Amino acid sequence: MSQIQSLAALLSPASVAVVGASRSRSKVGGMVLANLVAAGYRGGVHPVNPAAALAGETLAGLTPLASSEMLPEGVDLAVVCLPRAQALAEVEALAARGVRAAIVLAAGFRETGRQGFLAEQELTRIAERAGMLLLGPNSLGLINTACNLNVSFAAGHPKPGGVSFFSQSGAMCVSVLDWAMSLGLGFAKFVSLGNKARLNEADVLRALGDDPDTKVILGYCESVEDGQEFLAAAREVTAKKPVLMLKAGITPAGARAVSAHTGSASGSPAAYRAAFRQAGIVHVEEMASLFGLAEAFASLPLPGGPGLAILTNAGGPGVLAADACARTSLTLPRPAAATLASLGEVLPGFASLYNPVDALGDAGAARYRSALSILLSDPQIHSLLVLLTPTAKSEPLKTARAVIEAAKGPDNPQAKPVAACFMGGTLVAPAREALLAASIPCYDFPEAAVEALSALHDQQVWLRGRPAPPMSCEAQDACDAPWDDEAVAIVEAAHAQGLLELGGVTALEAAHAAGLPVLTTGLARTSREAVRLAREIGLPVSLRLAVREGGPGAALALRESEAARFGLLADDDAVRGAFLALTSRAARTRPDASVTGCLVQAAAGAPRNGFELVAGFTRDAQFGPLLSFGLAGVGSELLGDVSYRLAPLTPGDAREMLREMRFYPLLRGACGGAVVSLAALERLLLAVARLALRAPRLAGAQFAPVLAGPEGVFIAGARLTLG
Amino acid sequence: MSQIQSLAALLSPASVAVVGASRSRSKVGGMVLANLVAAGYRGGVHPVNPAAALAGETLAGLTPLASSEMLPEGVDLAVVCLPRAQALAEVEALAARGVRAAIVLAAGFRETGRQGFLAEQELTRIAERAGMLLLGPNSLGLINTACNLNVSFAAGHPKPGGVSFFSQSGAMCVSVLDWAMSLGLGFAKFVSLGNKARLNEADVLRALGDDPDTKVILGYCESVEDGQEFLAAAREVTAKKPVLMLKAGITPAGARAVSAHTGSASGSPAAYRAAFRQAGIVHVEEMASLFGLAEAFASLPLPGGPGLAILTNAGGPGVLAADACARTSLTLPRPAAATLASLGEVLPGFASLYNPVDALGDAGAARYRSALSILLSDPQIHSLLVLLTPTAKSEPLKTARAVIEAAKGPDNPQAKPVAACFMGGTLVAPAREALLAASIPCYDFPEAAVEALSALHDQQVWLRGRPAPPMSCEAQDACDAPWDDEAVAIVEAAHAQGLLELGGVTALEAAHAAGLPVLTTGLARTSREAVRLAREIGLPVSLRLAVREGGPGAALALRESEAARFGLLADDDAVRGAFLALTSRAARTRPDASVTGCLVQAAAGAPRNGFELVAGFTRDAQFGPLLSFGLAGVGSELLGDVSYRLAPLTPGDAREMLREMRFYPLLRGACGGAVVSLAALERLLLAVARLALRAPRLAGAQFAPVLAGPEGVFIAGARLTLG
Repeated sequence: MSQIQSLAALLSPASVAVVGASRSRSKVGGMVLANLVAAGYRGGVHPVNPAAALAGETLAGLTPLASSEMLPEGVDLAVVCLPRAQALAEVEALAARGVRAAIVLAAGFRETGRQGFLAEQELTRIAERAGMLLLGPNSLGLINTACNLNVSFAAGHPKPGGVSFFSQSGAMCVSVLDWAMSLGLGFAKFVSLGNKARLNEADVLRALGDDPDTKVILGYCESVEDGQEFLAAAREVTAKKPVLMLKAGITPAGARAVSAHTGSASGSPAAYRAAFRQAGIVHVEEMASLFGLAEAFASLPLPGGPGLAILTNAGGPGVLAADACARTSLTLPRPAAATLASLGEVLPGFASLYNPVDALGDAGAARYRSALSILLSDPQIHSLLVLLTPTAKSEPLKTARAVIEAAKGPDNPQAKPVAACFMGGTLVAPAREALLAASIPCYDFPEAAVEALSALHDQQVWLRGRPAPPMSCEAQDACDAPWDDEAVAIVEAAHAQGLLELGGVTALEAAHAAGLPVLTTGLARTSREAVRLAREIGLPVSLRLAVREGGPGAALALRESEAARFGLLADDDAVRGAFLALTSRAARTRPDASVTGCLVQAAAGAPRNGFELVAGFTRDAQFGPLLSFGLAGVGSELLGDVSYRLAPLTPGDAREMLREMRFYPLLRGACGGAVVSLAALERLLLAVARLALRAPRLAGAQFAPVLAGPEGVFIAGARLTLG
Repeated sequence: MSQIQSLAALLSPASVAVVGASRSRSKVGGMVLANLVAAGYRGGVHPVNPAAALAGETLAGLTPLASSEMLPEGVDLAVVCLPRAQALAEVEALAARGVRAAIVLAAGFRETGRQGFLAEQELTRIAERAGMLLLGPNSLGLINTACNLNVSFAAGHPKPGGVSFFSQSGAMCVSVLDWAMSLGLGFAKFVSLGNKARLNEADVLRALGDDPDTKVILGYCESVEDGQEFLAAAREVTAKKPVLMLKAGITPAGARAVSAHTGSASGSPAAYRAAFRQAGIVHVEEMASLFGLAEAFASLPLPGGPGLAILTNAGGPGVLAADACARTSLTLPRPAAATLASLGEVLPGFASLYNPVDALGDAGAARYRSALSILLSDPQIHSLLVLLTPTAKSEPLKTARAVIEAAKGPDNPQAKPVAACFMGGTLVAPAREALLAASIPCYDFPEAAVEALSALHDQQVWLRGRPAPPMSCEAQDACDAPWDDEAVAIVEAAHAQGLLELGGVTALEAAHAAGLPVLTTGLARTSREAVRLAREIGLPVSLRLAVREGGPGAALALRESEAARFGLLADDDAVRGAFLALTSRAARTRPDASVTGCLVQAAAGAPRNGFELVAGFTRDAQFGPLLSFGLAGVGSELLGDVSYRLAPLTPGDAREMLREMRFYPLLRGACGGAVVSLAALERLLLAVARLALRAPRLAGAQFAPVLAGPEGVFIAGARLTLG
């Protein structure tokens, strides 16, 4: 579902019914009621339990009702703590009673096969008909510390804080809650989505985006319900506050495990990564990073640039932090001359004034304090990491106070983020508590601190680069390359003929019509025709085999024909010879393929010193057109150097697709590479995205090789897949 | 230093003198004495303090001596707790008194500039002359739990355990000790190396390798003192027990920070990685992994293969573990048919029987126990990871006991490693303690558990593949390619001429003499000569510019000449034309370069469909010849796909250099790549290693392009750098 106006009745209810409330804490209905009362919820609470009502018992000091039908008018939320068989009837009764929102805790629905699936469908229908908000089924419940609401069957109630967490997995909720409570972390809201029969991550994202108590949104998911809807919601919310997501199944092996677990095919890992990136979601790669990143986003401002200063009382941890920096977007600027001069005055003679700044093992709080003030005033330094090891002369707690004073006081007028890493156990425990209490994140290890600070910087970069919205087809049409319906017509014609794949001249024609830069290409049926075409196109040319689209063995022959190619044929004899060589070899080796002749293609555009690239798209089951870009031939995928984005693209997305490639410096002339027009490559990527959106009949397309050099960017081959 | 016979007097002394002992715990001499007494050391303790002796005071209940000269004969160890100025004189006195080992805690030596450097040299001389073991200076001291020895000024004394830790940085010692104590981890020995004036990591490695109390060696270093010595010691020790090392400065930025910190240029990050790999050291990439890996190695057997089974009570964490697996060498085998049948009997209907095996959220200890027994009996499964989230129905402590029973009992006759990850805080704390007490590592997060189990597997693979020793030059000479001193003669002649770089025919001749497969190449001074040479060599040929070695602008011209190349010249006219084109262009664009003509090179060996590779070596400041291998042209380094190894190479090293490349599958024919002879490539790498060892005058060599295809492997270009 989506477009749910407000989740207030669910998240901040004025009154709550606990259906299936129990006195026994070993029962779900008992745990929920106990949690609700223990949390200090001040709204109306209505336990429902026929047996208890009949026996005249009280539950947690409240008089139970005999049935949901006896609830007062206008109850906001009902938590259904009964097994599947009874839950359906109860939800029906609650809907009839005008209850605005329900949470179904029972498992045994979609996740358990056909019968459960049908039960879930029925549940959804009931809620939909009544316009009732529905969380679950198979949910663990929810917590809202702002109104002391705890309608979950997890143990414990967290203290208030700026982080809100939502999770597809109830088990993950329990673990995260238990873990965070033992670390003393606070939460605003805690939502277990369960099977997402009606409410899904997009709805909860939007609600948390509007929640004034939530500073940072943390999410765990295995799949999303509706990729495009999720993307739209995420784009809205990330403009307002940071969204961090841990996605299980982000490798092919993990994705297979998700399918086994949820029973449904979800999107590809590449599509999820692209979606997170394009929506500005901070992708949390490992569970260990979850809290560290959340703490940083919840308590620190974003830095104004990449420059990190490391201040330490021991060389080793400083170097480990520098090593960690090298894996991120942060830099370690050399302090400015004025900074060096000032540092020289407050640090001992043998201290290293460069970055990492080593205040030496005998540094007390005062020395840290002076160095911090100086570093905070350096314009090249945008964020600070304070490292401390508990040496004999160190003053952990006093140093913590000095850090707090420097970070939160007038010495830090630009509000540069300051994080700490006080390394050790009991010796630094009081210092860490003081830092935590002052909202200065303190990490166990230098690497985790650097990871968190770099995530802040990445977020800032993303926010600054964000302005351009995705380019709609219409906007693109109005732009430099007007849309030509001929491309769709070619695809439709091929589909009408029952073809599954298109290559050769036809595919290149479709590409040309779609505004892609295609090398002039013609089909020659005879060697004489080849020579004539070559002269028309202009020598030199290249030749490759042409096969009948959809003919017997066509798909395979098509692939082979792409490999069998003669380049730089400079005169008639060469063209004739190449034609005969190609066609006679094909007749020998693939007599089943319907060879129609040879493609004659301009070779002039093929840059001598340029690159062979590949661009294309597939359709992701969850997110739609997924564009890819990389080096052709050398197996970009093996080298792990392929970039992915979802259509529609923003011009910024296209630019990033190029820049994030490891081989990007080659395109700028590094290592003797040709200097390629990035603008031309970006236009090409935008045009591929438009084709994907305009021609829904295409299951995918691959343009390879894309020849890119100083003279321009030219597509020399194309293969379109029809779905 | 090296070749130290025994460190017994240092590590397990029968008696200890504390020179500069003090009553005040705020002084180093007070902390050391207090630690020594508090740890319960049972050997003789002799505090030395002139003032206290004069005043007739006691220190920690002991009568202090007035000077080191009054020590009894045959004291094993003296800990010198005095500042630099006094420490030198004291060490001299201790040496005179026949004390066998000394630890100098004072800082202010080499790390503080010239004066300190000279003082350290003097210290070394004194110890050397007396044949005295010397730890430090700038050491934090050491701990040996086996004999209750704590002569450090760190806070606290750890409990006994199988892990020994040594560290270059004292600060890291303090942090690690404090951290480990708060986690309840035990240690055998704890050694702070300090400035390594005499004893270095190689000596300590050997001593710990022979120490029966040490099961796992954990090391932290910023640099090593003697690369070759370290490598030799590590090779010996890793054959006996696992060695884990955290190296600060493993990125270029980090390495720069190390130089700033230690003031000395150390080896390159690539050389360290190669050294660790070739010596079988487990390279710990981040501090966060240090304890997790150490625990796994200290308490678990090595697995018999890569197959990991994941047993969980929640899908999400199982998927996260599967994701983590994909980044390691572990596999997730599908359980055997018999295993599936048995699992089906003990798990509920909706449980996922595949891998990860999901026993569902209501799994109690008994269900875990049954599933564990079944999984342990599957021959495809070599290690197990048990995940638990504290759901309402879970039984964390009972499940922990079930895991211990299964892992340590008769159900696990092959001693497969079993690790756990019980996710949460207080709800799982007792279970984690029980597991830890039973030596079953329990991790906070699935990713850390998988990382540790995969490190065990990598170690097993390394141990199994280890037998072949590095190939000595002599062994290689006796092998298929006898050594030809001509290669050295060419290099020496060039050196005699004052050349700094060698290219063209001369470099290829040297390569040929060194047993490398070189394409037939000749130098043509005129176009007529080019045509004659081309016929001699056999058409087709390729041509490139030749410049006089060491002539004006030669180095640059040499590089350009490598780029300006005409290939596949098939007849006299083409050869003549190419010669004129190359030489006339050079005369125009680089009139300063002494063009001597063109190199005429056989083109037959250049495989149409093969690869252009690059192999070579540089000399690392610390580790000597460092070989590298990668794809030429497309900027392997940018793509991060270069493999490095130190000479001498084992044949296994050469094989691994190929296999660890991401592009390796291309060499085996993937993605339409040519199938290349791996044996030929391995021979080439071994020959490059031999050249590096045989010709010490060479500062480096680069062979590029190395043309590799089905027809063979051929070097088409070479550049030798003289040092």
